Amino acid sequence: MAYLICDALRIVLVGTRNPLNIGAVARAMANFGFQHLRVVNPYDPAFREARSAVGASEILKQAEQHTSVADAIADCSLVIGTAAGTGRDAQHEVLHLQQAAEAIRNHSGTVGLLFGSEKRGLSNADLSYCHFLLRIPTSEHQESMNLGQAVAVCLYELIRAETPVVSQEETAAATAEDLDRITSVLTNALLARGYMHSESRETSELKIRRLVRRLSLSCKDAETLIGILRHLLRDPA
Amino acid sequence: MAYLICDALRIVLVGTRNPLNIGAVARAMANFGFQHLRVVNPYDPAFREARSAVGASEILKQAEQHTSVADAIADCSLVIGTAAGTGRDAQHEVLHLQQAAEAIRNHSGTVGLLFGSEKRGLSNADLSYCHFLLRIPTSEHQESMNLGQAVAVCLYELIRAETPVVSQEETAAATAEDLDRITSVLTNALLARGYMHSESRETSELKIRRLVRRLSLSCKDAETLIGILRHLLRDPA
Repeated sequence: MAYLICDALRIVLVGTRNPLNIGAVARAMANFGFQHLRVVNPYDPAFREARSAVGASEILKQAEQHTSVADAIADCSLVIGTAAGTGRDAQHEVLHLQQAAEAIRNHSGTVGLLFGSEKRGLSNADLSYCHFLLRIPTSEHQESMNLGQAVAVCLYELIRAETPVVSQEETAAATAEDLDRITSVLTNALLARGYMHSESRETSELKIRRLVRRLSLSCKDAETLIGILRHLLRDPA
Repeated sequence: MAYLICDALRIVLVGTRNPLNIGAVARAMANFGFQHLRVVNPYDPAFREARSAVGASEILKQAEQHTSVADAIADCSLVIGTAAGTGRDAQHEVLHLQQAAEAIRNHSGTVGLLFGSEKRGLSNADLSYCHFLLRIPTSEHQESMNLGQAVAVCLYELIRAETPVVSQEETAAATAEDLDRITSVLTNALLARGYMHSESRETSELKIRRLVRRLSLSCKDAETLIGILRHLLRDPA
């Protein structure tokens, strides 16, 4: 499924001024497995050499260059514009990034996702090609995101549902036997050194047993700890 | 709830080389409502002037500068390191970003989230202060993210659960009456212009009625369309 989205999506950068931002977009695309980049009238024609495209030179090399939004999205059956902040655009429906990502994943066909220039965003003319707008839920105090960061967040949300949250192999927890070895080594040592009086031994032992359990020790850490304690308690040579 | 996380989190940048990256981190923090930035031994002491911190100069100004990770996280009761890609670290539990974000949201107390230098990431010594590692689910072909983009994605995931996906006021859909007005204007016009023969009128009208319904017109768009059709069908002056 993730492969379908990665294949179907075209990232379309319209009138981007800073080639480093185009490179950063390419890098984010490589990070999340997307390949198809299109640029419309980039300010710097040498954008393909952007050094910010770490690990993404192939994406920049194969990026399509267009002279109009219409050309760039001609083969797309769903076109989405990105809007900063509250995206007050009476002409368009504005979807929260989560909803937009779902719509993109559910669409069968090529999808164009448009990002405007750093200063001005997308123009009304650019937006007129869009089926709806997408909004990243940024703070109302600072709505406008850096281009490369905005693309990274959108692509993360797109693949988020597809990446299995695999739990790591759980580290084996220490057994009750291990924990009781620690408890008794500690109790005996404290007793021998006069930290606890023999009359309160029972209470103290309970206290230590509970403490040892709260440490949530793994099997391996329990072993290490027993080794450390034995070493500390050894009579000096 | 979102305010709690934003208040509790410390973004800790360790040994960052490029001050523009520190600025980009501050910008992402402002975008998602986080304020507390700490830097440990930044390469460029003039990082506070980074021009990339658009709308986030206050965060840079108030950033704490430390000379060791231990100092930077001294008040944190949960410390998390970030690892590129599969994060092969036998010493630590590695959590998927989604799981880590949940753990951060559920923690009551100050949380430190550590990001290493651009080239080397976090050292083993840095990692020894961490309770677990967090992994962003990047592609195995290009695991390593740009620092500012990685921070943006992590902060987005942290606030994601807290941002209500408010559906826009639904645009009122056109009523059946509107749709039938369009259908009949169209049918009559096509009949008058000889597009359909009167014998097949019934079939054609059904076809047009179905077509008009598939357009999913809003109330407002239906009105516009009726106006356009009437205008087109007017006899030339």
